[in-house]
Amino acid sequence: MADDEVVLLDFWPSMFGMRLRIALAEKGVKYEYREEDLLNNMKSELLLKMNPVHKKIPVLIHNGKPVCESRIAVEYIDEVWKEGAQLLPSDPYDKSQAKFWADYIDQKINDLAYKIWATKGGEQEASEKLIECLKVLEGALGDKPYFGGESFGFVDIALIGYNSWFYTYETFGCFNLKEECPNLIAWAKRCMEKESVSKTLPDSNKIYEFVKSLRKMHGIE
Amino acid sequence: MADDEVVLLDFWPSMFGMRLRIALAEKGVKYEYREEDLLNNMKSELLLKMNPVHKKIPVLIHNGKPVCESRIAVEYIDEVWKEGAQLLPSDPYDKSQAKFWADYIDQKINDLAYKIWATKGGEQEASEKLIECLKVLEGALGDKPYFGGESFGFVDIALIGYNSWFYTYETFGCFNLKEECPNLIAWAKRCMEKESVSKTLPDSNKIYEFVKSLRKMHGIE
Repeated sequence: MADDEVVLLDFWPSMFGMRLRIALAEKGVKYEYREEDLLNNMKSELLLKMNPVHKKIPVLIHNGKPVCESRIAVEYIDEVWKEGAQLLPSDPYDKSQAKFWADYIDQKINDLAYKIWATKGGEQEASEKLIECLKVLEGALGDKPYFGGESFGFVDIALIGYNSWFYTYETFGCFNLKEECPNLIAWAKRCMEKESVSKTLPDSNKIYEFVKSLRKMHGIE
Repeated sequence: MADDEVVLLDFWPSMFGMRLRIALAEKGVKYEYREEDLLNNMKSELLLKMNPVHKKIPVLIHNGKPVCESRIAVEYIDEVWKEGAQLLPSDPYDKSQAKFWADYIDQKINDLAYKIWATKGGEQEASEKLIECLKVLEGALGDKPYFGGESFGFVDIALIGYNSWFYTYETFGCFNLKEECPNLIAWAKRCMEKESVSKTLPDSNKIYEFVKSLRKMHGIE
């Protein structure tokens, strides 16, 4: 796979994009990163061509062919590049459970999180619901170091990008995640010790400043 | 796998449940079907125990262990029972594309379809959007007999359950799908020639009567 051409269309604050960046780093795949100017809603011709249905990042382009939707792309990366870390379990049942939790994250977290920072008035209710969901995830983590057990994998990749957003949620939602979900915060710290994660995730303050500028732009404050 | 104990918790009009019923039929897996009385919101203890997170059908219980969320369960069935028809392609890229379209169906179709029959006032807008999405799917089907090519598979299974609901959508949304999406309707007819599908899908009139009683119950008409 050394001659593979791999391109990632992405936007730096996207936790969905971070998933692919982490997965590619875990596999040791070299790729060209292309930043989309989504803040100014300037989507590239390449993005519109490669993801005509959703017109969204991230898009993984492998030898000219696009793979869209982050969970699907991480599964694809795991199947194609066998040489690096294995991200999904081999056992079909364990695999189904990993997919279940990654799906849970996508069904619940983003919409609630968005309500916290992008609306005026619904923050408290959204914060309470978000904490509830994060507690469910904390329950799924249990006493294990990672969601899948001893090694970092698919569910960790699906969730860890939110870690660079937690400070923003806490600030606008007025809560403290370390108090609410101490085990989840310990898990996030553990993940951050991995180079694939620490080199990928933007600084929490940078996300916070980005969100503040977004709020200003949309007249939220 | 002959000694496997397989139980399906389901509700007859559910297109998500139909996916599992079709997949199990395609694989020739014998299972116990347990109907949940969701019309009266009477969820069984077993359902609440097996899907404590979402508390929803369908749930596949394989040797006592639950697999929830229909697309995940169909993937699981395909991996575990190798002896029947293969539902997902082996090639990682083709597989990612099948998952993309099944995901598209779940992101778009159900919410729009629900708005057509369960609300008063939004039917026309929802109908137009639904037709638009079905045309996108028709484009993905192209000239192929099935979404994956020559054989019936994952995307077909994800979509075909809606065929027993189309008459209901057409009636409440005042449109004609055969006119709007002739190739999709021809595809549905082709799928209906398969025993796994024809024996699974409820009659369109039965769904229509069911929806009428639901609308009456919720005071929509």
